[in-house]
Amino acid sequence: MPVCRLTIEYDGSRFSGWQVQPDCRTVQGELKKALATVMREPVDLQGAARTDAGVHALGQVASFEAQALPDPERLARSVSALAGPDVAVTEAALAPDGFNARFDATGKRYCYAVLSRPTPSPLFARTSWFVPRPLDLGAMRAAARVLVGTHDFAGFRSSDCGRKTTERTMARVEISEHERGLVTIDVEGTAFLKNMVRIMAGTLVAVGHGRFPPDVTARLLETKDRTKAGPTAPPHGLTLVEVLYPEGGLRRR
Amino acid sequence: MPVCRLTIEYDGSRFSGWQVQPDCRTVQGELKKALATVMREPVDLQGAARTDAGVHALGQVASFEAQALPDPERLARSVSALAGPDVAVTEAALAPDGFNARFDATGKRYCYAVLSRPTPSPLFARTSWFVPRPLDLGAMRAAARVLVGTHDFAGFRSSDCGRKTTERTMARVEISEHERGLVTIDVEGTAFLKNMVRIMAGTLVAVGHGRFPPDVTARLLETKDRTKAGPTAPPHGLTLVEVLYPEGGLRRR
Repeated sequence: MPVCRLTIEYDGSRFSGWQVQPDCRTVQGELKKALATVMREPVDLQGAARTDAGVHALGQVASFEAQALPDPERLARSVSALAGPDVAVTEAALAPDGFNARFDATGKRYCYAVLSRPTPSPLFARTSWFVPRPLDLGAMRAAARVLVGTHDFAGFRSSDCGRKTTERTMARVEISEHERGLVTIDVEGTAFLKNMVRIMAGTLVAVGHGRFPPDVTARLLETKDRTKAGPTAPPHGLTLVEVLYPEGGLRRR
Repeated sequence: MPVCRLTIEYDGSRFSGWQVQPDCRTVQGELKKALATVMREPVDLQGAARTDAGVHALGQVASFEAQALPDPERLARSVSALAGPDVAVTEAALAPDGFNARFDATGKRYCYAVLSRPTPSPLFARTSWFVPRPLDLGAMRAAARVLVGTHDFAGFRSSDCGRKTTERTMARVEISEHERGLVTIDVEGTAFLKNMVRIMAGTLVAVGHGRFPPDVTARLLETKDRTKAGPTAPPHGLTLVEVLYPEGGLRRR
C-alpha cells in the first residue's frame, strides 16, 4: 500500500502532547480527525516522537498507509486547514513502501530554549524557559560536553519511563548564546528516554546557576541516580526540530 | 531632572498600538499606569515610535523625567511585572540630561516578516504575514534596491498621514531568505511616514507575486501616487527592532 510521510509543525501550548488519549486534545488526535475527513477513511498515523504536553515541534514526522493518496500539496493544505491554527502539515510526500515514521527514524534533533535576562520576553514567552538569574555558560558547556557519545542515560529519565534499554548515543549537546538573553541547548541523538532532554536542560541550567558543579553530568552517567539530577525543565522551552532518516528513508531492520 | 531611558519589548497582538487613546489598551497606557505605581507619581512617557495596533517591538525606546530614580534593574522588573505578560522593559538606564527618546532618535530599524510556503506556521503565525503563493525574490530585491537613499516617500504613506515633509533617507531595504519559508524585509531609515514600512512590504510582496513589475517602486517615488502602490501589509508581520541614537544619546538640535 502507498505510504504518505508528513512533516508537522505545532505550537504545543494547548495540546496534551502528541499521543491520542481519551478526552484530551492531542496533536495525533486532531491530525487523525482531519485525515479521516480528507481521506474518507480512518488512518493509522504513526508519529516519530511522542512529545509531551506543552512541547512544540517544527519538524515532527508522521506516516500513514492508504489505498490511494491525493496530491500531497492538496493533502497538506486540507489537513492544515481542518486541524486548527496550532498545527500544520508543512510537507507531505509519498514515502518508500513499508516506511514507518517511528521505526525508520535514526535520530532526532531537539532545541531547548532558555531566556536568561532580568525581565521576561513577551515575544518568546511561549517557546522559552524564563530564567532571570545569570547563567555561567562556561560551566554549562563543560557539563554538556560529557553527555556527547554513547552512555547509559538511566539517570536522565523520568521515573515512569518504560524503556528497557537506557543506552543512547548523543551526537551533539551544544550550548549557544543569541541576542537578547536567549540561550539554546541543541541536542541530537539516536533516541531519547522519557523527559530526557528536559532533565538534561534542567540539570545544565542548575550547573549554570552554580547549584551543581560541572562534573554532575559525569556523576549522573556513572551513578544513574535520577534523584541527583536537576529538575525537569518546563515543556514549553522544548521544540522537536527535526527527525533524521537514512538516505532512501528506510532503516535496515 | 534625571531622565530614565527604557528599552521595551511587546507582543502587539492585543494592543491598540503604542499611543495612549481613551478606552483602548495601549502599550504607552499600560506602561504609564505601571510607572505611576512604581514612581508614586504620574510620568510623561515619550516613545520613539508610535507603532500601530498589532505591530510588535523588540527594541522600542521610551524616556521620562523624574525627581528621583530607583535602581534601574529594580525599575525594569517592577514595571514589567505590573504591565502584563505582553510587554516588558528589557533595559532601564539613566540617560543624559535632556534626553528625549522621540526627539533624539536618529533612525529606526524595522523587520517585516513574510511566511511564504503552502501551509501556515503555528509557531510564527503571530509575528509573520502568511502568503501561500511563492515569491520571486529576485524581482523583490530589484524593487527594494531603488528605495535605498534619500527620496520623497509621499507615495508610501497612508492617506491620513499628517507629516508635512515626506523626504526620508533609507540606509537599508534588504530581503533575506530563511529556513521554512520565512522571508524578511529589513528596513533602516532616519524616520518613517505613517504605514510606510507596511506599504513598502505590501508593494514588494505584490512584486514578488508578479502583480507589479520591479520598477513599480521607482515609479512610485516619481509619481508619489499611493493609489498605485500595493496594499498595506498586515500589522502583525511588522516588528520595531531597534531605535538608533547618536553616541552620547543626544542629537544636536
